Parts: sequence; C-alpha cells; structure tokens
Amino acid sequence: MKFEILKDNLKNGLNIVERATGKNLTLPILNNVLIETKENFINLVCTDLEIAIVSKNLAKIEKEGKIVAPTKLLLNFISLLPNKKITVFLKNKNLFIECENFKSQIQTYNPEDFPIIPQIKTTEFIEIENKIFCEGASQVVEVTSPSQIKPELSGVYFSFFDNSLKMVGTDSFRLAEKKIELENKISQEFSFILPSKTTRELISILGDKNGKIKIFSSPNLALFDFESKEISSFVQITSKIIEGEYPNYQEIIPKKWKTKIILKREDFLNHIKTASLFSGRINEIKLSVQPKENRVSIFAKTPEIGESQSSLFGKIEGEKLETSFNYKFLVDGLLNIKSSEVIFELSNGEEPGVLKPVGDLNYIYVLMPIKSY
Amino acid sequence: MKFEILKDNLKNGLNIVERATGKNLTLPILNNVLIETKENFINLVCTDLEIAIVSKNLAKIEKEGKIVAPTKLLLNFISLLPNKKITVFLKNKNLFIECENFKSQIQTYNPEDFPIIPQIKTTEFIEIENKIFCEGASQVVEVTSPSQIKPELSGVYFSFFDNSLKMVGTDSFRLAEKKIELENKISQEFSFILPSKTTRELISILGDKNGKIKIFSSPNLALFDFESKEISSFVQITSKIIEGEYPNYQEIIPKKWKTKIILKREDFLNHIKTASLFSGRINEIKLSVQPKENRVSIFAKTPEIGESQSSLFGKIEGEKLETSFNYKFLVDGLLNIKSSEVIFELSNGEEPGVLKPVGDLNYIYVLMPIKSY
Repeated sequence: MKFEILKDNLKNGLNIVERATGKNLTLPILNNVLIETKENFINLVCTDLEIAIVSKNLAKIEKEGKIVAPTKLLLNFISLLPNKKITVFLKNKNLFIECENFKSQIQTYNPEDFPIIPQIKTTEFIEIENKIFCEGASQVVEVTSPSQIKPELSGVYFSFFDNSLKMVGTDSFRLAEKKIELENKISQEFSFILPSKTTRELISILGDKNGKIKIFSSPNLALFDFESKEISSFVQITSKIIEGEYPNYQEIIPKKWKTKIILKREDFLNHIKTASLFSGRINEIKLSVQPKENRVSIFAKTPEIGESQSSLFGKIEGEKLETSFNYKFLVDGLLNIKSSEVIFELSNGEEPGVLKPVGDLNYIYVLMPIKSY
Repeated sequence: MKFEILKDNLKNGLNIVERATGKNLTLPILNNVLIETKENFINLVCTDLEIAIVSKNLAKIEKEGKIVAPTKLLLNFISLLPNKKITVFLKNKNLFIECENFKSQIQTYNPEDFPIIPQIKTTEFIEIENKIFCEGASQVVEVTSPSQIKPELSGVYFSFFDNSLKMVGTDSFRLAEKKIELENKISQEFSFILPSKTTRELISILGDKNGKIKIFSSPNLALFDFESKEISSFVQITSKIIEGEYPNYQEIIPKKWKTKIILKREDFLNHIKTASLFSGRINEIKLSVQPKENRVSIFAKTPEIGESQSSLFGKIEGEKLETSFNYKFLVDGLLNIKSSEVIFELSNGEEPGVLKPVGDLNYIYVLMPIKSY
C-alpha cells in the first residue's frame, strides 16, 4: 500500500471515524482504524460493533492495500504535522508516514482480524436536507431514556409516513416529537429505533454540514450516507437498530388544555433556574398561574436552605391553576426549543403539560407534572 | 443588616471569594461566606484556613451587620438575577434578597462560628505592577512539586533583595526562575515560600487586572492587596506561608554550556509533541545536535508502538551532542516561555540543560537530562 494525501484531508477523515473508537480492552482490535485504498480514495473505517463509521477521502493511490493501525496514535501524529502532502506506505508490517522533515513508522495489525462491517442490502433511500435532519434529531435525543430497562426507549424513534418524518424521544416522564416534511411522498411507510449514541454521533459529525443526507433502512440496520461536495469526501454511518416495538406514544399527548401561557423563553428559563436552587430532593418547583394579572409565579422551598418566589408576565388564556414540575424536565424542554417565545399548555394536576415553540407547529415537548399528595 | 448593591458588583465579589470555598465536610462553616457591612462597603470573606479572600465592594448601607450564608447558593442565585439594584436584609436569621420580581430568603448561620481571619501586623509593603507580578508567578508556579514530601518545594519562593524580586519554582527535576525589577531599592531583604495553591489563586483572580499590587509579609503570613479603581472594589488575599528554608538553588544552575541552540519556540514544541507520541514509560525523547548543518534531530522509539524522527533547523554554536530529556519537562518549559525564539543551552549527558527566551534575561528554566546507561 502506498498513497499521498493532504494532511488536513487525512486528519479530517480520522477525526470523524475516531468517534467510533473506544478504549476496548477485551477486543483491542477495535482501538484501530482500517485503512483501505480503493480507486482514487482511501477509506478509513472504525467500529465499536454497534456503529461503524466510514470516511472516504480523495488521495493519490500509488499501490493498493489494506492495513489496520492504532486510531488515536495516528490521529495525534497526523494532527501535529504541517499542512503539507503526506506520503504513507507499508513496509515490513510497519506503516511509514513522511511529511517534510517528519518521519515515523507505526506498527500495524492484520486487517483480517478487523471486524467485517455489515452492508445494507437495499438501494432505496430517503433524502433530507442534512442540517434540518440533524437539528430535529438534536431536539429529541436528550429526552430518550439513559437506562436499558426498556431498550426501545433508549433510542430515537424515526417514523417515515406519507410525506413526513417524525422523530420521537421519551423516557416515560417526558416526550419530545419533531416533524419534518419530506420533499416527496414515500411509497411505503417504515420506521426504526436508532440508539441514542448513534443519533448523538450523527449530530456531532454532520450537524454543521451543508448538503443532503441519504437514509437507508433494513430490518436490523440503518445507514446514513453524506457526501461533502466541497472536499470530495464521504461519510457513511452504519448502525444497529434497537429491536422491539415503540410504544403508542400519541395516546399520552393531551388533546385539550385548561390554561395556556405564552412566555419569553429566556425569561422563563431564568426564573426556573432561580427557583431550582431552592428545590429539594425531587427537584420540585411550583407554578401558580393568575390569568387576570397575566402573571406566572414560581415557588420553591426547602426548609434547610430557604425559599424563592418570582413572577413573570406573559399572555395567559383559560383558568387559574397551580401545578408542580421537576425543574430539570422543564429546563430540558425549554433548551430544546429555539424560538424566542414559548407556549405552555397546562391541565389539572395529573395531566401532562405541553411546551411548544411559538410559530412552529412541528415540535412538541410533553412532560408529566409532580403529583401533590 | 440591610444594604443595597448593584447585582454585578455583588456577583463579582462573590465570584472572587468563592474560590476559597471548598466542599468542606468536616467543617461545614467553611462552605459559607461572611458578609459584613463597614462604612460604605460590604466585605465578603471566604477561607479554607490556608488562604482567606476578602472582597470589599461599594454598597449603600442602611443598617450595619454581619452574617454567614452558603457561598455557592448565594453566588448561583445572584448570578441569575437581572443586572439591577438588589436589596439585601436580615430578618429572623434569614437573609432576604429582593431584585425586581425575584424574592428569596436564605437560611444563615452564626457569624461567631466563622473562623477569625488572621491580620498581618506590618504596615510596610512592596508595590509592583500587578500584571507583571502575576505573569511572572505563572511562569514558575507549575514547576513546583505537587508532593508534600519536601514541603518547601511545594510552594513558590519569593525573594526580595536590593531592587529586584526573584520568583522560583522547582520540583528537583526542573527549576524556573523569574526576576522582576522593583521601582525602588528595598531597605531590608526578605523572602517567603507561598503555597502553589495560593499562587494559582492570585493569578486566577488578579491576573488580568490593571493596577498595582501591594505585598505585605510577616513571619507566618503573606498579604496581597489589590485595589480596582474602576469599580471601587478591593481584593485582599491572606495566605499562610510554608515553613522551612528554600534550597540554595543557584548552585544547580549551570554556568557554562557546550552547545547552544536557538530555535523557533512553536516549531520546537511541535517536534517534541510529535516525538512524545512514540516515547515510552519514562517519556524519553532523544535530541541530536549537528552544529555543521544547524540541525537538531529528535528521536523517540517504543518497540510496541513504533518510532519517530524529525529535524528542525536553527542557529547552533558549540559542539556536536546527543542527549535525552523527559518530553513533559521540555514541553512545560517551552510553554512557560512567551518569546517566539528560544535558547537551549546544553552540556554533557549529566549536566542540566537551560531554556531561555530570546531577548529576555529575566527568565530561565533548568531541566535535568535523562541519563543513558
């Protein structure tokens, strides 16, 4: 194997695939990157067996080949080199890297020991504007359950139907749903549950990139394929999907409300954070809504610490009402919403509340109140 | 007690003193701030018994008094308030804080339980431009010993003599000395060893502030007094000093060299970092100096990983030479130097090397080589 590549291109590719490299002690081969030359590209591949990331980068291939080398060492070394042409070649099972006055040789491993990356069979895909897709995913992924007790809640539910994609996350205390309109009506509806980890990686790797993302799905895999036109590189993220059926979450979204508040999002967040300092073990803060005065008061009290009370003003419809929430759930919801004003729909003490951005019908965040006894 | 103060002034003061608040489980009173009104100022005081930080802030005092309240709760609460006037008063042992639509009450503790902050007796002091003082201290403090085996090496040595201040740090593997010229000749020489923790706090709190710092010293205390003219506030940091005699460090500073290299600092750092990836358990990297070619080559090798070799060019005087260093010590030294070029004076394998900035005679960094067997 021998190829030439610009330092920054190799660094960018390694930076992307490195995210699937863990510190795997039982299977040390997973701490490595598979480097493979194919036509005018070098493919970099890392996997943790749950997710596989491939980065295809344009290079001048002088001799084809395939090797496995430690990801982090390679990335750290390449990062420190000047941004010039790098020559990489294999000799006596050592990877030689040369760039200006720098020379190194790195021990490699047998590519036969590297796990085989599963390939998706289908050629059908859905194409979505990448930034819209990643932003939507980021609005639901932090609401998924961190525990594995109900595995289906530990991932994001992607449901393609008619001409829309719905993304859903819930941990059974709160739920977020984001709807994205597709350019074309799809022929057959389908859905899958993507592990939260994969979803977060997708957002981190691709979140700021312009272009379209292609989504492929099979009974046990999902593939996200992104081409960066500017630097002639490709990223492919293949992930296992979570088996099981996603709960019929539509049932828990309230259809009515008793009191509807419109508040400035930043202000509301600030008042909640202030009260949170005085909340106790169960993170309880109390909201008291006074429609006549267009006022929302927020209370919190813990005998050993003290208490806090603050008021903010907005537009209020409906009835006077008192209710309590876990402040963390409210904060998470408000952070997922990007609009400057927010709608909060409330019912009686046992029904969930619903947060929505003002001026955007495509996002809702549902959260359970704390029941008072 | 009752006073009015602008939110940002109270927040700034708390932010400064909070640095002396730890998570003290055995003496929970230390997690609190003492608030005391005096003439037109409120004094905020925190201490961990090693160091005491006082922040004096201009306020409108309506009723004098003294209380103790949880530092972090207070700081977090004040930080979230709008930047308006805050009214603070004591009622039934609760501290009431009011600001616009925010009201809170915080449980307080008996100020009699708060430790007494030791007062320095002397009125004599040395005055130094604060930024110069802090920058100098930051160039030596990270070289002090983290262990307490030789307590005198766990602090920075400040030595005032004639018209100069010398600051020294060493962990016995390397040593840094910074000299600052004083405006006036001092009448009587004196010195003290300041704990590294205090030195770091001084740099963090005052490092970016314009003005002069006054230094007071007594047999067991040092006091650093800084007045910020812009916002009419004062910071006083009182610290215990370390008992014991500082070693006669001048002895180990080499007076001669065999080979002298001048290199671009950033380049040298980059080459060392690159080699460091291939260094082994004792962090060894090898330097080979070729005066004829004006070349320095850097090698590192670990059989299980691989090896690296790189060359950089500079001005070289003296003899051809090979020597080895712990790369961490070299990196630390180069990071402490701010000039774009650096002088590295080397002798034979057992003598320490000396790093100096080009164009500044007031800083030296001495480091032991790794002896080859």
